[in-house]
Parts: sequence; structure tokens; C-alpha cells
Amino acid sequence: MVDVDTALREITRGALEIIPLDELKKKLESGRQLTIKLGMDPTAPDIHLGHTVILNKLRTFQDLGHKVVLLIGDFTASVGDPSGKNATRPQLSAEQIAINAQTYAEQAFKVLDKDKTEIKYNSQWLNELGATGVIKLASKLTVARMLEREDFTKRYQQGQPIAIHEFLYPLFQGYDSVALKADVELGGSDQKFNLLMGRELQKDAGMEPQCVLMMPLLVGLDGVKKMSKSANNYIGVHDSPSDMFGKIMSLSDEMMWNYYDLLSFKSVDQIEELKQKCSSNQMNPRDAKIELGREIVERYHGQEKADEAVNGFINQFAKGAMPEDIEEVTLSAMPFANLLKEAKLCASTSEAMRMFKQNAVKLDGKVITDSKLELGSGQYIVSVGKRRFAKITIQ
Amino acid sequence: MVDVDTALREITRGALEIIPLDELKKKLESGRQLTIKLGMDPTAPDIHLGHTVILNKLRTFQDLGHKVVLLIGDFTASVGDPSGKNATRPQLSAEQIAINAQTYAEQAFKVLDKDKTEIKYNSQWLNELGATGVIKLASKLTVARMLEREDFTKRYQQGQPIAIHEFLYPLFQGYDSVALKADVELGGSDQKFNLLMGRELQKDAGMEPQCVLMMPLLVGLDGVKKMSKSANNYIGVHDSPSDMFGKIMSLSDEMMWNYYDLLSFKSVDQIEELKQKCSSNQMNPRDAKIELGREIVERYHGQEKADEAVNGFINQFAKGAMPEDIEEVTLSAMPFANLLKEAKLCASTSEAMRMFKQNAVKLDGKVITDSKLELGSGQYIVSVGKRRFAKITIQ
Repeated sequence: MVDVDTALREITRGALEIIPLDELKKKLESGRQLTIKLGMDPTAPDIHLGHTVILNKLRTFQDLGHKVVLLIGDFTASVGDPSGKNATRPQLSAEQIAINAQTYAEQAFKVLDKDKTEIKYNSQWLNELGATGVIKLASKLTVARMLEREDFTKRYQQGQPIAIHEFLYPLFQGYDSVALKADVELGGSDQKFNLLMGRELQKDAGMEPQCVLMMPLLVGLDGVKKMSKSANNYIGVHDSPSDMFGKIMSLSDEMMWNYYDLLSFKSVDQIEELKQKCSSNQMNPRDAKIELGREIVERYHGQEKADEAVNGFINQFAKGAMPEDIEEVTLSAMPFANLLKEAKLCASTSEAMRMFKQNAVKLDGKVITDSKLELGSGQYIVSVGKRRFAKITIQ
Repeated sequence: MVDVDTALREITRGALEIIPLDELKKKLESGRQLTIKLGMDPTAPDIHLGHTVILNKLRTFQDLGHKVVLLIGDFTASVGDPSGKNATRPQLSAEQIAINAQTYAEQAFKVLDKDKTEIKYNSQWLNELGATGVIKLASKLTVARMLEREDFTKRYQQGQPIAIHEFLYPLFQGYDSVALKADVELGGSDQKFNLLMGRELQKDAGMEPQCVLMMPLLVGLDGVKKMSKSANNYIGVHDSPSDMFGKIMSLSDEMMWNYYDLLSFKSVDQIEELKQKCSSNQMNPRDAKIELGREIVERYHGQEKADEAVNGFINQFAKGAMPEDIEEVTLSAMPFANLLKEAKLCASTSEAMRMFKQNAVKLDGKVITDSKLELGSGQYIVSVGKRRFAKITIQ
């Protein structure tokens, strides 16, 4: 067992906010196994590295001996948004929910320790509430207090409708913490109000209230927006080993250290050591990046695939195939043949067409034959033959 | 069958507001039997004449061939106010609810036609809603719209707490109308928002929306405040025939006509005729008052008791026993013996004590022997022997 201070150092690493820190410390000092809660809507089961920031934090708790509960919000998912206005809250069948939850769990177990993880479904206690239970739950909070939630405040002030059932969902989330007797709940900073609801309802139920730990959102490959599918700046846990590795290698050095903090299982001390080596020129930052890429590919694809990805990358790029500093070009979306001409990788679109036929065009190391392919916004390494390279940013 | 215009004239008599009148007319013109809804909380089963204003209007609908549904709000009564702040919404057991509803129904049937009345309990459909149904129901209205309810607006602006479950109760009341397929719902003017909720939810459910008929609050015996037990200015339907009759005889002429409109089963034309006779001195208003008193006592105690009450009153007061204009005195609460002295009905408290022993002291026509009795605030006729009278107002 590590001492409480070391534990706290790992737990607070990368965290945006912990409420309240002293209570968390007391819980850790108690020596008992804590219950760490993470709620998820079983709507979008495919996860990317952005989602794993919180999973990694859960893993930290597990490594410290605590128990994680993955709370599947199947109750609310089965209701959806009855007003039909919230596209992110579609109504799902029990079957869809089960499939999504299963897919999510499989991916989560690439990070989490299965033996220290419980999966719970909140329909178990929320359905039991009945109409009467919902009324009693709704009596626990005032309208004014609920309107203090940032997005509600804004919408109310701007005259945008808030349906009354939206006031019930934070209460359900809080009640889940009561049902689970959660000690700590994790979430994004946008979840602060709902996370604190658990504290209030637990206090009301005479329990020791949970602490709340908020993690930042991971910035995507573009270095600007948060990682998301819609911004096409993500690294999916299902990406191929070479894609995954290549994308990590495309990060700036600054972003690499952010990714280390939020995604690596190395300890704070180990990361600090790497940083010092790089800043004192004892180590090439590219090697630190390769180490990070290897760790992450290994996590999702195993050691063998990770080795292959690293070696493939080194053979293709590092061993002189790719110049140290390749040209960076920013372009708008267009057919691939035109893109090659605009990036000056080919003299003309007709030369580009020949290169496609010779299988000489590669996107992030993979052969492309579709001359009309249009890339979504994001950053790519494009090569023609063995000598021509460009780092292309599509806006 | 009366024609629609005559029906409308009886229905609108005394009404504060009908929303919307043209739809009500169309419903009446359709010729079908309408469902008229009145909701009641089974909390205070003892009713007074103030409560019967609405019952009388229901009776009018029944006399026109329509069906009345007395909707017992047993669901909400069984929940009560979970925040415990609303004393008018105590939590009741199923047993208490059944007893209260039974008592209420017995009293209501003094006015209503039992054969055209159905009694329904809203727990039947509200319990079935479950947690999911409550969420769906809550999605039907926005927070901003709910805050438009007058009392919510005021409390929100004044920073007084509104618990979130209070937003659910108007929706339940509206849903009752959907479940009952109500054509018309009656209520007091303070219920306007909740009554209109039925219209909205029925429209949402693809039904012909109910019309809403609001009746004014009956002014109590003091001529100022609305009739209520707490203001001690009420005529209870359980009052003895002589009390009931005496209280009606104590009304001012102006109030008498208001009571005629709201309480009498006489037609609009019959009342108009009485008014004209009085204003043209063909009739003494006191006789019109006797006629009203007789009608009301007969409704709650039968014809025989009504005759006795009228005769008793006439013997005691009208045949010269009581002067036409008795002295009015306003006093604060004190033991009865002192009261008699202060009101100058006795020369001293020791004379008063003798009068008590002789059974010569009467309060509203009933012998009083307890010299220490303290009257609550209200108006009383007190007599000592056969000649000394005073109308005493206790502040």
C-alpha cells in the first residue's frame, strides 16, 4: 500500500477540481475500500482516447485498492427525451442498451481491472421509485437552486425553453449515488452541478457524502478543440495500431506532455523524469513520444501489435525515409488528386492519377487508391512515393 | 330539455369566468351528455356553504342532463407534501382518505343527484404512470410556463423556495382531465392555472379540450372575508337547523342577493322576480331572507326541520320578542359573565351569574350555563331573559 500523500498525488494528477479535497483525504485515510462511481449514457458505445481520461483515473483508484462502479444509465436511456428536442438523448430499446453497455464495457476493460469493477444499471432502483418516489425526490430541491445550473441559467435568461422533466435528471443522477453509496464520483467539468447533486441527496439520506473529482476534456489532434468524433480529431480505441501510433506521433511536444498526464499509466515521478531528460537534451522528445505511443497501442492492441507499429513507423519515417522536418500545408477539403497538386506533392492532377494507379499515394502510411476521396478536417501525413511528404491540415 | 341559451344562462349565473365560452356553447349544442369534473383533496371533509357554491353549479349541469365526476385526489393526498412545509397538504393514510372521501360524498349528495354522479380516485391512473410516466408528463411543460402561475411568480421573485415537486402537481391535475375525458372542469378562481393545464394536456393527447368554469368565493357572515372555518364566519352543512337559519337571517340584504345567486336552486327568473318585488316594496326583504333560509335548511335537514327552524325564529324574534334593531357591540374575547356586563345585558357579573343559574342566558338562541365560556372572534346574538338582546362582535 502506498501512503495517503502519494495516493493523493496520483489521484489529483491532471484533475481540474476535487470537491472537497480534505474529505477525500479523510476517506483515503480511513483505510477502507472506497466505491468510485462513473455514470455513462449507453448511447454512444464507441469510445476514443478522450473518454479514457476518466477511465484512467478510475484505474488509478483501482490500483490503490478501491472498487469502481460503472453505472449504466439505462433508465433514462429507455425514456429518452420525451420532448424529442434533445438529439443526444434518443430513446433506446432494452436490447440496444444491453448491446451498447456490453460494447462500452469491453472497451473500458482495456483500461480497467475487471476484478475491481462492478457494472450496475440504474433502472434497478429508479423504476422502483414509482410516481410517488419521483415526487419525493423532486421535493428535495428548489426551482431556484436548479436554475443555478449554468446551462439552465443561460437558457432561462435567453428565453429558451427548459422542459420540466429536465429538472428531474440531475436528481436521478444524485439518487444513483445514494443507491450505490458512492464515495467518489468522477465526471467532466460540465457535470459539476449534477455531480454535486449526489452529495446533497446523500447528506439528506444521512450518509457520508461523496467527493467529486472532475477531469478536463482531452484536446484533440488539432490542438484546439476537445477530442470528439464530430470534430474528426480523435484517436479511437478501435483505430488500427499503425493509425493510433501515427496519430500520437503527430502530436506537438507540448500536447504530448498533456497526453502523458491524462493517458499514461506511468507515475508522476516517471513522467517528471522524462520531462527533465527532454528539457536537458539527454533525450529526443520524439523518443518520449514513441514511448507514449507504444504504451497506448499496447493497451488497446497488445505488445506484439505495438512493436509492429513502432517498427513500421521507424522503418518508414525515422530511418531517413521521411525528412526530419516535413512541410506543413493547410488546405480546405477537396478531392485527393487536387489535394496532391495543391500540396505540391504532384505537378498536376494527371500526374496524381498515375501515382494512384502505381499505389504510390499514402495517407498516414496507408495506400490510397481513391483519387476522389475527400478528407474531413484534421491533420494527416500524406506521401507520394518514398521521398515526397507533407503534413496536411484540412480546415 | 331546455334550449341552449337558457342552459347557458343558468350555467353562467354567478360564474366569474368561463374559458372559452364559445367552446362550451358548442359542447352544449352537440346534445351529448357532458362529463363535468370537480377535483377535491380529501383532507378536510367537513364542508360549509362556501364549498357548496361549486356543488350547486354541478347540480345545474346535472339538471341539464350531464354527468358529474367527483375526482378524489387520493394519490397526492397519500404523498402529502414531502418537504413538510405545506400544512394544507398533510400525508394521509389510505384509511383516512377513504373516510374523508366518504364524509365528503355524503355531504355533497345533499346537493348532487347521486344517479348522475361518479366518484373516481386518481391513484388509479397516477400510480400506473410510474417513474417513466411522470418524466413524460413533466416533459409537456416548460419551467418558464410553470413560473407564470401567479403564486409561483410571486414566490420566485421574492426568493421564497419552490420545491420542484410543486411543479408536478398541476400536471397531475391536468392529467386527471385526460384520464376522465372531462368536458368541463369547475374550480375557484385561484385554480385557473391548474384548470387550464387540463386543456393543454388534453390537446396534447389529441382530445377535445375541456372548458373551464370558475366560481367566485362565497363571502362569509362578516361580509368581508371569504367563508372559512379559520375566519369563523361560516355556515357549516352540519350546523343545526336553527343555527343555519339564524345565520342566514343575520345577512345584510345585499349579501342575501349574492347568496341567492350562488346558493339557491331557484331559477334566474325567479330570483329576478323576488328582487323586483323587494325593490318595489311589494315584499319585505326579511321575507325573501326567510325564503332563502328555508330553502337552505330544507336542503340539509329536510322540510320538517326547516319548518321548525322558521317557526322557532319567527316566535322568538319576529313576533316582537326581539326588537327590530338590536344594539350592536364590539368587544374583545373574555369570560361570558364579563361579556354580559360589558354589553350592558346585565348590571354586574353577579347578576350575570344568577341569570346563568336561571337558564336565562342564550347564545344564538341556545341556553348557555358556562359563565366562563369565551367566544372566538365572530358575530353572535346574545340574549338575557326575553327582552334583553345584543348583537356582539368579538374581535
